[in-house]
Amino acid sequence: MAFYAPPIARLLEELERLPGIGPKSAQRLAYHILRGEEDSAQRLASAILEVKRSIRFCERCFNFAESEECDICSDGSRDASVICVVEEPRDVVAVERTGEFRGLYHVLQGAISPIDGIGPEQLRVRELVDRLGRESVAEIILATDPDIEGETTALYVSRLIKPLGIRVTRIASGLPVGGDLEYADEVTLGRALEARREM
Amino acid sequence: MAFYAPPIARLLEELERLPGIGPKSAQRLAYHILRGEEDSAQRLASAILEVKRSIRFCERCFNFAESEECDICSDGSRDASVICVVEEPRDVVAVERTGEFRGLYHVLQGAISPIDGIGPEQLRVRELVDRLGRESVAEIILATDPDIEGETTALYVSRLIKPLGIRVTRIASGLPVGGDLEYADEVTLGRALEARREM
Repeated sequence: MAFYAPPIARLLEELERLPGIGPKSAQRLAYHILRGEEDSAQRLASAILEVKRSIRFCERCFNFAESEECDICSDGSRDASVICVVEEPRDVVAVERTGEFRGLYHVLQGAISPIDGIGPEQLRVRELVDRLGRESVAEIILATDPDIEGETTALYVSRLIKPLGIRVTRIASGLPVGGDLEYADEVTLGRALEARREM
Repeated sequence: MAFYAPPIARLLEELERLPGIGPKSAQRLAYHILRGEEDSAQRLASAILEVKRSIRFCERCFNFAESEECDICSDGSRDASVICVVEEPRDVVAVERTGEFRGLYHVLQGAISPIDGIGPEQLRVRELVDRLGRESVAEIILATDPDIEGETTALYVSRLIKPLGIRVTRIASGLPVGGDLEYADEVTLGRALEARREM
């Protein structure tokens, strides 16, 4: 038996396709939309359509962009000699939030994961190498995730770029600030010991 | 500094207005929409607009409906002499899923909650009483939530309806099926003892 009127069922179905949204969350969201203002549903729907219409990939760094180049690539005040290589556009936001980095980015749009059938060809690795041929770059910071896929990707990209005579660095692994030694996993703690610094 | 292109920022803002969606979830949803098919964003946006356009409240029971009366109210095979009173449309779905109830519903659209400024006037209580004047009803089952607001509402509605000579019942409170005595809170266990039945 159909418990929902067809338009509600359709909305639930579309909401459940979203990541992290199960049947219960979908129901909560649908009811919120149903009970809310006509206007706010309009704004949500048009924000969804607008983002698809106006956002594309930056032709230089493959971050999300509104025009050919993203705001970061087209910002002349940034240091174009350092490129931070990340997996996803959200990682650009994470690094930007630190306020510590004034160079440019290169978004690989994923990480090497043989189990998911993702090799270097599926990523923007070729585009990175092409870019290094055109641009004058002194350092590549590999800021892929510190997990198996990210480490594999970092290793692969580093082997590809080092022969070009460009300095390649990797972000540090270690204990998170505010973390607790007792609860750190042994791999992280091992890396933190290995990467110890003089005080 | 703006970390996101304006259309992405706008979508994030709209997504964060939804219940249970914080900044991290909003980002995950936005990136899913951005990386997904044009087509699936279209379907999501139109499902949102469609649901607002086509769904209204049933004029009889105040459940969501596509026309004047909802599918349940207009189903002649259901027993119109029993009305199950619930707080929200989602509760109708919950009761329907049991497959145990063949009567009609009345959706109060909330529960009495003085702290939130919700009194009987904000609910569809008047409409229930009017309905009992028009329809021939033998039993009202109060299926509001077993929390303070739901109990208050049940008590209020029961006092209003009992003088009309209609049988008023309340769904049972007790231990959930598959539950564990050890972990039951004392109020629930107390209710379960109080409502014990002969075996």
